[in-house]
Amino acid sequence: MTALIAIDWGTTSFRAWALGPGGEVLAATEAGQGILAVPEGDFDSAFETALAPWLGSGAPVIAAGMITSRNGWVETPYLPLPLDAGALAGALVGHRSRGGHRLYFVTGAVSDPEGAFPDVMRGEETEVIGQIAAGGGDGLYILPGTHSKWVQVEGGQIRGLSTCMTGETFAILRQHSILGRLIGPGPGSDAAFLRGVGAAKAPGALMARAFSARSLALMGRLAPGEIADYLSGLLIGDEIRAGLETAPEGVSVTIIGRGDLASRYGRAFAAFGIRATVAPEGMNRRGLFEIAKRGGLI
Amino acid sequence: MTALIAIDWGTTSFRAWALGPGGEVLAATEAGQGILAVPEGDFDSAFETALAPWLGSGAPVIAAGMITSRNGWVETPYLPLPLDAGALAGALVGHRSRGGHRLYFVTGAVSDPEGAFPDVMRGEETEVIGQIAAGGGDGLYILPGTHSKWVQVEGGQIRGLSTCMTGETFAILRQHSILGRLIGPGPGSDAAFLRGVGAAKAPGALMARAFSARSLALMGRLAPGEIADYLSGLLIGDEIRAGLETAPEGVSVTIIGRGDLASRYGRAFAAFGIRATVAPEGMNRRGLFEIAKRGGLI
Repeated sequence: MTALIAIDWGTTSFRAWALGPGGEVLAATEAGQGILAVPEGDFDSAFETALAPWLGSGAPVIAAGMITSRNGWVETPYLPLPLDAGALAGALVGHRSRGGHRLYFVTGAVSDPEGAFPDVMRGEETEVIGQIAAGGGDGLYILPGTHSKWVQVEGGQIRGLSTCMTGETFAILRQHSILGRLIGPGPGSDAAFLRGVGAAKAPGALMARAFSARSLALMGRLAPGEIADYLSGLLIGDEIRAGLETAPEGVSVTIIGRGDLASRYGRAFAAFGIRATVAPEGMNRRGLFEIAKRGGLI
Repeated sequence: MTALIAIDWGTTSFRAWALGPGGEVLAATEAGQGILAVPEGDFDSAFETALAPWLGSGAPVIAAGMITSRNGWVETPYLPLPLDAGALAGALVGHRSRGGHRLYFVTGAVSDPEGAFPDVMRGEETEVIGQIAAGGGDGLYILPGTHSKWVQVEGGQIRGLSTCMTGETFAILRQHSILGRLIGPGPGSDAAFLRGVGAAKAPGALMARAFSARSLALMGRLAPGEIADYLSGLLIGDEIRAGLETAPEGVSVTIIGRGDLASRYGRAFAAFGIRATVAPEGMNRRGLFEIAKRGGLI
């Protein structure tokens, strides 16, 4: 029996699960459309089409992610840190779809809203709530990507957040800068990646160290096939170097991610003397289940 | 009587002067083509067309700038730092044009060629030599631009060099990143620029602080018309913050540049408690004259 329909609805992805009373997965789908792909912003149709087989169950529906942003279905306010599953449950935003289905949206979170560097997330807070519910302890949770999120957990609460534009910066330097023009095809070089991480530890502005990719290439000391990995190491390394500057000594670091990118972050943290753990999968739906339970939806 | 024809030949600009025996300007032209605009790389024709009225004088010709790069007329090697006018004069590369005119090319310069962060310049060394010849003392010479150059002079010699991709990074973030999409038209805001410089002083990775342009805009605390100035201040501020970290206390700073960009750098240095001087104009031809004199061309 489906107890909860849980949706992780992002800018370019849609994942949903039919969950049983204990949070177990009865069915899963990725067949829906990411926000940008929904024609004319008709989220009602996208929702009802993707979940048609499950909606007849009458189970409550909970959703998190960029679907609650300005370009999403219903824009919800940001909840200020610190927060936990109970606070997010208390801030759920109810909505009725055109087809009459009742949904609950998890709001995003904001850190330091009145300070010089406010920061925001939508969806990552739910993932981290899932990690906490699954027994993840205090420390830093890193979600690498286009915009990497560093989420700080203390006393079982989310207390800090910082976003770094690492993935996006890498992509635009590669596609649009003078450095990109030098990049040639290559098999991927772990040595070049670690050399870039090492460059991140040296003094100087990030964009001065980035120019070394060009100087080294001009002098034949960095091969065309190594430049992209060097640059990736430099950007990830700079994110980690600066992020660790304000972190407590011996902080526990958990990487929430998969595949090559998670592995790169793990190797970069190791270069800073930190053994980062890769988090278990499926914590997004676990967070949605936890918030729904606290909110009395189940 | 023309004693020297001096050319500053860059990627997108061409400037030349007919100089008298004391270095005085007898005539000047900007009518030639920058390297990228020379059709089919026919630099011989571009040279002879632009300078036709002067070449009959038989005066020696000296040229500096990106014209000696791989995409230029004659690729010359880089001369390692430290160097002065005499060293550049000793490394002049002679060349005869198709029309039979004898030219001398000033080589570029390289710092730390065997180290982890080699750096290169072509043209800026000649400008700084001119500054030194005109009585500019020891300290940092900053040439702001697409790729800002920091040139360190000590004991009348060029001893250090660092290139920062500040201008290019600003341009690609504005045109291609998520931050650019938020930028609206505005009259230019000195306050937003200085707020960006202030952000550069805060801890955190550059690309984490850059994301604050988005967070602040989302929260209505940075107007669309202020975002570009904020970002400009952040990038220039980060260049200066990091550059000053390795500079001696009380270092003299000279900005080689004109107009709005030189003024921005001046205001940003002031925010770091440093009163930067804007260098006198015309030091490029002065450097060319000095090197030619040392090389016995005059």
